Amino acid sequence: MNKVFLLDSTLRDGAQSVGISFSVQDKLKIARILDDLQVDYIEAGNPGSNPKDMEFFELLRTNPLQHSKVAAFGATRKKNTAVEDDANLRSLLSAGTDCVAIFGKSWDIHVTDILRASLEENVEMIRDTVRFMKENGKEVIYDAEHFFDGYRANPEYALKTLEAAYESGADCLCLCDTNGGSFPDFVQSVTKLVIERYPVAVGIHAHDDAGMAAANSVLAVSAGATHVQGTLVGFGERCGNANLATVLANLQLKMGYDCVPAEALERLTSTVHEVADVSNISVSKNMPYVGANAFAHKGGMHVDGVMKNSLTFEHVAPSAVGNSRRVMMSEVAGRSAILEKVKKFYPEIKKDSEEATKIIEMVKQMEHQGYQFEGAESSFELEVRRLLGTRPKFFELQMLSVTDEQQSESRKKPSYATIKVLVGDQLEITAAEGMGPVNAIDAALRKALEVFYPEIGEIRLTDYKVRVLDSESATAATVRVLIESTDGHEYWTTVGVAVDIMQASTRALMDSIEYKLLKSNATAQSDMKQTESA
Amino acid sequence: MNKVFLLDSTLRDGAQSVGISFSVQDKLKIARILDDLQVDYIEAGNPGSNPKDMEFFELLRTNPLQHSKVAAFGATRKKNTAVEDDANLRSLLSAGTDCVAIFGKSWDIHVTDILRASLEENVEMIRDTVRFMKENGKEVIYDAEHFFDGYRANPEYALKTLEAAYESGADCLCLCDTNGGSFPDFVQSVTKLVIERYPVAVGIHAHDDAGMAAANSVLAVSAGATHVQGTLVGFGERCGNANLATVLANLQLKMGYDCVPAEALERLTSTVHEVADVSNISVSKNMPYVGANAFAHKGGMHVDGVMKNSLTFEHVAPSAVGNSRRVMMSEVAGRSAILEKVKKFYPEIKKDSEEATKIIEMVKQMEHQGYQFEGAESSFELEVRRLLGTRPKFFELQMLSVTDEQQSESRKKPSYATIKVLVGDQLEITAAEGMGPVNAIDAALRKALEVFYPEIGEIRLTDYKVRVLDSESATAATVRVLIESTDGHEYWTTVGVAVDIMQASTRALMDSIEYKLLKSNATAQSDMKQTESA
Repeated sequence: MNKVFLLDSTLRDGAQSVGISFSVQDKLKIARILDDLQVDYIEAGNPGSNPKDMEFFELLRTNPLQHSKVAAFGATRKKNTAVEDDANLRSLLSAGTDCVAIFGKSWDIHVTDILRASLEENVEMIRDTVRFMKENGKEVIYDAEHFFDGYRANPEYALKTLEAAYESGADCLCLCDTNGGSFPDFVQSVTKLVIERYPVAVGIHAHDDAGMAAANSVLAVSAGATHVQGTLVGFGERCGNANLATVLANLQLKMGYDCVPAEALERLTSTVHEVADVSNISVSKNMPYVGANAFAHKGGMHVDGVMKNSLTFEHVAPSAVGNSRRVMMSEVAGRSAILEKVKKFYPEIKKDSEEATKIIEMVKQMEHQGYQFEGAESSFELEVRRLLGTRPKFFELQMLSVTDEQQSESRKKPSYATIKVLVGDQLEITAAEGMGPVNAIDAALRKALEVFYPEIGEIRLTDYKVRVLDSESATAATVRVLIESTDGHEYWTTVGVAVDIMQASTRALMDSIEYKLLKSNATAQSDMKQTESA
Repeated sequence: MNKVFLLDSTLRDGAQSVGISFSVQDKLKIARILDDLQVDYIEAGNPGSNPKDMEFFELLRTNPLQHSKVAAFGATRKKNTAVEDDANLRSLLSAGTDCVAIFGKSWDIHVTDILRASLEENVEMIRDTVRFMKENGKEVIYDAEHFFDGYRANPEYALKTLEAAYESGADCLCLCDTNGGSFPDFVQSVTKLVIERYPVAVGIHAHDDAGMAAANSVLAVSAGATHVQGTLVGFGERCGNANLATVLANLQLKMGYDCVPAEALERLTSTVHEVADVSNISVSKNMPYVGANAFAHKGGMHVDGVMKNSLTFEHVAPSAVGNSRRVMMSEVAGRSAILEKVKKFYPEIKKDSEEATKIIEMVKQMEHQGYQFEGAESSFELEVRRLLGTRPKFFELQMLSVTDEQQSESRKKPSYATIKVLVGDQLEITAAEGMGPVNAIDAALRKALEVFYPEIGEIRLTDYKVRVLDSESATAATVRVLIESTDGHEYWTTVGVAVDIMQASTRALMDSIEYKLLKSNATAQSDMKQTESA
C-alpha cells in the first residue's frame, strides 16, 4: 500500500479560527489525542510570533509523544536580514523540534505588496532559510503559501520559488491553496506538473473557502502528492482548513492509501469529538464520516433500502470510522454498542433480555433530555445500576439551597450553600461557602458527606465543562455539565443535565462522589474476599 | 454568458434531514425566499408519498411564484402496474406543476435487491413513466438515482436506463451521486461521456458524504452539465445535499456562468440565513461564502495582508455575496485591527494618540482576564466608552441576590432574584423568579429597568453560551458568558467573565441592556437633530 503522510495543524492554523483559544493544557490534550490517532506530524505552533507557543514546545520536550513528529512553523527570514540574525528563525530552532515547516511567498503580488521586497530577494529568502534549517539538521517541510494563486498569476515565478526550496534541500514541497479559492481539476493538474519537475515529496494544504478543500486534497493525492496538511475537525482561518478526518477516511477507505493504522481509523469518530470537546466546539452533525447524522437514515425509501442492503445507501461501513448507523424513528439505533458498555460492569447482560430493552429505552430517553454518555461512562454505569436495582444507596440529598449576592457590578460576596443529606438513618445539615455558587455546592456536598465517608477527601476535580444545549432558549436553555474527577489513581467523568446550571452541576458532582464510593466499596469487598480466601 | 439552471430541493431532499420538519407555512416562506433569489426550479415535494405535500402544491397554485418553476418529485411506476393505474403517478399529475422530476434506478443491485424487479423491467418502468409524463404535457427532469455507483458497477446497464429516459423524451438527464461517495475526477469524466452520448440537457445531483458535493457539482458543470440540483443551506439526508449557495457562488463568480441575477447573488448571505431561520437551524459559521467567519481574519499576518490588499487573503469580494469582512480582535490581530473597530463609533481616534494606547492596554488586560471581544463588539464598545468617559450612566446595580433551592435530586423550586438598581436618583427594588438562577437574574434586571426604559421590552435573547476557561480549576474556574440579543432590527453580542457564573452572566446581561439603551438614545438624539434642522 502507498503511504500518504498527514500533518495536522489544529494547534497552529486551527488556533487561528474565530472562537478558538487554546490554553497550554488544551494544546497538550489535543497533541495526545492526535498522537493516539498516529498522524505523522503535529504542527504545534509558531514560536516566533507567539511566546505562549514556546512554552508549549518546552512542555512537549519534557512529555514526548509516542508516534507523531512535532513540527514548528515559521516564515522565511526577513528581508535585509542574515539568517543567523533573524529572531524568528532563532525561535524556530530553539523550539527544539526535529521538523520545521517554513512558509514562503509564491505569489508575486504578495512579495511586492505585503513583504515589499523584490521578487529576486524573496527567492533568496527562501533559499537561505531552507538551507539554514537543513544545516541545523532539521527535516524541512516547505509550505509554498498561495502557490496555486501564484501559479495562476505568474507560473514562472511561482515555480522559481519552489525551485529555490528544492535546491536548498527541502524534504517536502507543500503546495498551499491559502485563500481556498482553487478548484480540484486545476489543483490536480498543477500538482502533477510540480511532481514531474521536482523529484521530492510533494504535499497539499487546502482551505475551504469555495467548499473544495477535501476535493483539492484528494485530487492532489491522485496526482501523486504524498503529504496532506489539514486540521482534524476542519478548524482554521475563515471557512477552515481541509478537514483531515474527511480526507483521511477518503484516502484510506476509498482510495486504498495507507495513512494511520486501521484500528486508529476505527476510532476516528470519537477522536474527532474529543478534539472538538477540548476546543469547546460542537462537531457539525452533518460532517462527513464522523457527524452524528453521517449515517442517519430518515426518508422511508432510504431506511427500507439500507435494511435490505446497507451498501445501497451507505458509501462506506460506519464501523470503519467508529460511527454508527442511526435509523430515525425506530428501535435499532446503537443497541449492541450500548450493551457492550453494560457488559463492562454487568457481564451477565443478555442481548435480547427485558433488562437490555429497558436500558436502551432509558438511554434513548435520557439522550432526548440532553444527556450524552459518550465520555461520561461513570454516570452511565450509575444510571444502569439504578435501573437494575444494583446501585447502593450511599446518601440521599434532601435539600440544597444556594445564595449568591452581588453588591455592585464588581463587588461580589462569597456564595453560600446550605445542605441536608440523609445517610442511613442519620441526617447531616451543614453549610459552606465558595467562589461562586457551584464551588459552594461542591464544598457543602463534600463537607456533609465526609462525615460518613472520609475517602471523599481523596477526590480532586480536574475538569469542569459547561455546554449550553439549546442556546436559542437563552437564559432558559438546558445545560449539560461534565465533571472529571480523580482520586490520584483513576480518572472518571460524570454528567448532569438541567435547565438550571446549579442543578446540572449538583447532579454531576453527586455522581462523581457516588462513583468514588462505589469503587472503594467494591475494592473493600474484594479485599475482604481476598482476606477470607487467603 | 452560459446559463446553468439551478434546482433547489430544500423542500424535498432537505426535508429528509434529521432535525428538520417543515410546516406548510414554513414551506411557503422558503419557496418565496427561493423565488426571490430566482432559482430556476423549486422541487417542492413528493405528492405520492406525502399527503401534506399535496396541500402545499395546492397552496402554491393559488399563490403563484414570480420567477421559479415548481417541480413535483416522484418515482417511476411500480412494477407490474400500468402507468395509468399507478397511484403515485396520478398524485404527481394532480400536483398540477408544469415540471416533474422522475427518479429511476440506474444501479443494478438496487433493481434486484430493493425493487426486486428484473433489470429489463426497470428499463421499461423508466421508459413508460417518462413517456406518460411527456404525453401529459410535463417538462420532465429524469433523476438517474445512484447513477455514478451504477456506472461503476455496471456501466452498460446504467447507460441503458439513461437511454430509456432520453428516448422517451426527458428534457434533462440528471446524474445523481445519491450516496455521496464519488470523487470529482470520476464525476467529471462520466458526465462528459454522457453529454457526448445524449444531445439533451444533463444535470448533476450530489451528496456530501465524502465532502465532495460542491466539487462534484462544479466539475460536472466544467464537463458540460447545465443543470445543478442542491439545497441552498446544504440540508439533506445524512451529510446533506450539495450546498447550492456554495455552488451558485462558485459558478457565477469564479467560472463566469449565469445562474441568477447579480443583484440576487448580492443578497445571498441574508437569503441563506432566512432559509435557515425558517428551518430553525443555524448557519455554520464557517460555511463558504455566507458563513459569519467566511471573511473573518484573525491571524496577525492575515489581518495585516488583507488591510494592505484584500485580494491577498480573500478569494472573492465579500460584497459580491452580501457578506462582509470581519477583522477579529485578539492578541494576534494587533493594534490596527482594534483601532479599526474603535473608528466605527469614534471616528476621531488617532492611531498614535494616548487614547489609542490606553485602549490597546485595556484590551490586552481584559483578554488576559479571559475576555474575548471578537464576536462581542457591543461589550467592546461599552468598555471603550467607559475608558474614554463617553458611556452614559443609564443605571447602577446596587445589589443582586439569588437563591436557588433543590429539595431532592430531582425536585427543584424556581430560582428567585432580588435586585436593587439606581436610575438617576430613583431606587428600584424588585424581585423575579426564573427557571434557574440566570433566568431569574435576567427577569429581575428587565423588571427593574423597564420601569424607566420601556424599550427594554423589545430585547429578546437569541443565544447564550458558556465557556469554562481554566477547566482544571474545576468548580472554581473562570467562566466566560456570551449573550446574543436582538430587538427585531439588529443583533448584538455581549460578554461577561468571572469565577462566578452568576456574575459573568449578570455582566453580559447588563451590557446587552446598556447597548440597547445606547442605540435607542442615539437614534432619539439624531431624530431630534433632524427635527430641529427640518
